[in-house]
Amino acid sequence: MQQIVNFILEIDQLKAVTRKVRPVGLDRYENSAEHSWQIALFAAALAPYADRPLDLDRVIRMLLVHDLGEIDTGDTIVFAREGWQARKSAERVAVERIFGMLPKSSGEAFLGLWDEFEVAETVEARFAHAVDRAMPVLLNLNNDGGSWKEHGISYARVVERVGPEIEAGCPALWRYLELRLVEAHEKAWFGDELPNVQKPS
Amino acid sequence: MQQIVNFILEIDQLKAVTRKVRPVGLDRYENSAEHSWQIALFAAALAPYADRPLDLDRVIRMLLVHDLGEIDTGDTIVFAREGWQARKSAERVAVERIFGMLPKSSGEAFLGLWDEFEVAETVEARFAHAVDRAMPVLLNLNNDGGSWKEHGISYARVVERVGPEIEAGCPALWRYLELRLVEAHEKAWFGDELPNVQKPS
Repeated sequence: MQQIVNFILEIDQLKAVTRKVRPVGLDRYENSAEHSWQIALFAAALAPYADRPLDLDRVIRMLLVHDLGEIDTGDTIVFAREGWQARKSAERVAVERIFGMLPKSSGEAFLGLWDEFEVAETVEARFAHAVDRAMPVLLNLNNDGGSWKEHGISYARVVERVGPEIEAGCPALWRYLELRLVEAHEKAWFGDELPNVQKPS
Repeated sequence: MQQIVNFILEIDQLKAVTRKVRPVGLDRYENSAEHSWQIALFAAALAPYADRPLDLDRVIRMLLVHDLGEIDTGDTIVFAREGWQARKSAERVAVERIFGMLPKSSGEAFLGLWDEFEVAETVEARFAHAVDRAMPVLLNLNNDGGSWKEHGISYARVVERVGPEIEAGCPALWRYLELRLVEAHEKAWFGDELPNVQKPS
């Protein structure tokens, strides 16, 4: 029991990991703990729109643990162009440490969920990725561009970065978002990226 | 799809509902969204200690939605002595409104989970209540008394208020906490309640 208590107090720190998007009507950035909660419910609400049968409960469990590595590494904006592999390796080390605090069978089950999300090969993991990618898009669309304007992210960069994963995991969601992103582009809700961070041709 | 998007942006407001407990190492109060995330994982980690077989996934889903009514009502400290019935009725009205934003079958499924938690008759609902009650206890134990001291809550009041629900839902968890609460009492981590809010004899 003490192992479980130590684990649950350790993961409390995810409440202190801030992301680059702001909740509706709040000035502060959202944190990765409340984000994880929201996308778990987003997955549950969106499940009828999945294009193939899936185990929603495994999607939910994956989403609840997928950001825990950030306790040691912090969050990185999805539009960063470099260092993804190194960060993911560091997150893997972090979750091994954190899940290692639990009794062996529980720890291994959690690590299995984390790995399944990262590898992104199962229907459930791909659906989970779609939901994770789509949520900040919805918050930014609801906030006149939000972090895209704030951090100078272009329309092309957003579509290129989040489109394939959302489309692969939940095509119906991407069909909806694609149109909303075009509308947002017409309203100039995106930033202009500097030439040296543009997509290589 | 637009209904689901409206729903997920509506529930974003739970990130702004503050509770009376502070996360580990942070000065701010925790909010009900990150709390819901944490107890969902607490339930998952604690499940091997359940005293009877249960559907963990239904526990997790219940915990993810159980506080959504607070979007309209705000959070009330668990040690409040009056007005519980009225607040619960107001929360029920709130979740009917919020789940009513979804397509009918999804909305009804979510409302069913919320009701199951409130009625607290199933094994899953009782386990969920135990986890929900225990989490702030663990945070306060980790913070030298935390909100008990800050809000003048006595040892007797804590044991009386959270003990029966935790014991009913997860006896092993209560056996652990009971001892920790005695230790905390010896360290004077509780407040002294005013006579007019003491337990009626």
